[in-house]
Amino acid sequence: MSTVAIIGCGLIGQGWAIVFARSGWQVRLHDPDANARAEAPRLVRQQLLALEKHGLLQDAQSIALRVHVAETLADALAGVDYVQENSPERLEVKQALFAELDRLAPPEAVIGSSTSSIPTSAFTEALPGRARCLVAHPVNPPYLVPVVELSGAPWTDAAAIERAGEIMRAVGQKPVTVRREIEGFVLNRLQGALLQEAFRLVQAGIASAEDIDVTVKDGLGLRWSFMGPFETIDLNAPGGIADYCARYGGLYASIGATQQPCVPWEGELVGELQRQRRQQLDASELPARRFWRDDALMRLLRHKQERRD
Amino acid sequence: MSTVAIIGCGLIGQGWAIVFARSGWQVRLHDPDANARAEAPRLVRQQLLALEKHGLLQDAQSIALRVHVAETLADALAGVDYVQENSPERLEVKQALFAELDRLAPPEAVIGSSTSSIPTSAFTEALPGRARCLVAHPVNPPYLVPVVELSGAPWTDAAAIERAGEIMRAVGQKPVTVRREIEGFVLNRLQGALLQEAFRLVQAGIASAEDIDVTVKDGLGLRWSFMGPFETIDLNAPGGIADYCARYGGLYASIGATQQPCVPWEGELVGELQRQRRQQLDASELPARRFWRDDALMRLLRHKQERRD
Repeated sequence: MSTVAIIGCGLIGQGWAIVFARSGWQVRLHDPDANARAEAPRLVRQQLLALEKHGLLQDAQSIALRVHVAETLADALAGVDYVQENSPERLEVKQALFAELDRLAPPEAVIGSSTSSIPTSAFTEALPGRARCLVAHPVNPPYLVPVVELSGAPWTDAAAIERAGEIMRAVGQKPVTVRREIEGFVLNRLQGALLQEAFRLVQAGIASAEDIDVTVKDGLGLRWSFMGPFETIDLNAPGGIADYCARYGGLYASIGATQQPCVPWEGELVGELQRQRRQQLDASELPARRFWRDDALMRLLRHKQERRD
Repeated sequence: MSTVAIIGCGLIGQGWAIVFARSGWQVRLHDPDANARAEAPRLVRQQLLALEKHGLLQDAQSIALRVHVAETLADALAGVDYVQENSPERLEVKQALFAELDRLAPPEAVIGSSTSSIPTSAFTEALPGRARCLVAHPVNPPYLVPVVELSGAPWTDAAAIERAGEIMRAVGQKPVTVRREIEGFVLNRLQGALLQEAFRLVQAGIASAEDIDVTVKDGLGLRWSFMGPFETIDLNAPGGIADYCARYGGLYASIGATQQPCVPWEGELVGELQRQRRQQLDASELPARRFWRDDALMRLLRHKQERRD
């Protein structure tokens, strides 16, 4: 049986615990904060029951029994097959923690960080075991959104990235490889590119925030929930993607030339967006809407599982 | 009972026929090509039966009976409430056709064009009824992807845009308003922004086309299929969108600064993308995969209807 150490048991750590436990792994959770350690198992169980209710897993209680709290880092790491780190997004925290993880984890265990913004090279350079360290960046919550971005430092061993990919696939995630360190990895770079245009269109008075949301959720986002952008255009011209580029490359180049510069996400523009969004959804409704979102994600995931796309 | 004239009965015109007929409208299809006119009713019926099979409508046969072919443009337009034009994407074709449509359609009927790339002002300036003309740009197929972009010329009457919006909502579409003429409207500008970054990442060797597709279909695209990009970030920070901008605006500005210039969609890069896509899907499989896509869209739509998002 395989065992994972999950270090840091806030929301992301809890999410990872669910991912590994539902796939039969033993999970050891550790957090330097005693309260976080004490609370985590209950929060994990709660979410497992919600997943069971949606038909996304069976026997939540048994799965929950595979999640254990370790009182010390050494206890958490002893004999594990893989380590997933989820500490606060501060470089000095990651640096100090990775030194400990590298010292205490079994030498053959790969160590992945959930960071969304700090490159592996910034917190692993000096470590004896730096070749086994990498970023394994999830989307929150990872048990509903399967993509995981794997991004190593220049010194990360290709075999470590491959091993992390195997582990992720084994627990039902969808690993993608970011082949060189780059800010925002792939997912946030794609999201950022679309958001920059969305902000630009609102600032220019071309469309409302709501109409942009409708354009995505009742338009672009439908196909993108089961095909990526490349498959989408590949199917949208008789001769595939090269044909698409020949037909529409000029149009997109012309559009692209007007999609600069980035507009700053501050001041009046942000005030206007906040105003528009609060007309759609009062601030007091944000928490309830987040439950709705997770519920909708669970239903979508169940739908995708049923149709096996 | 309301009647729509659908001018041009290729794929898009057939799609519009389904949209209107399933909502109880009488549909008059016209195409200058006699073969196209002869074929269209059968193709519409075929697609209606597929929709019935997926539980997306009932009584396809009755719906099909509301779709009629008009042998002349004058017959198609007599007494209609709305006109949807779907001729080839060539300016001189649209100019000549709109002159006829404006001459023959009842004066109170709004005339919408399905064009994805030609602004209203380019083919309506000289028309006596130019105030009732606008672009009503669908996504293909419109009976599965509900967004419709409404984009008028500077001289388009606001009431005509409002009326087109009412009609679109009445037939189950989701109209959005593009408040000023702009190349690509909103949808293709958003798609283009994301695609430009995707092309850039492949060219830089950061990620494969397949991994970019996975990042979207198993990541970003899941939430975007039921929330737009603004609602997504609004829910992703405790204080809503303004809070999100304060927390992450710097990161996205920094990413954005490296998302220029656009890479040309040509040469080696396109060859590489074509190579990668053909490894995923042989060219001979493209037609079958398009059926799969439409099937997946139908199932997704049914899922969204059931959960009422």
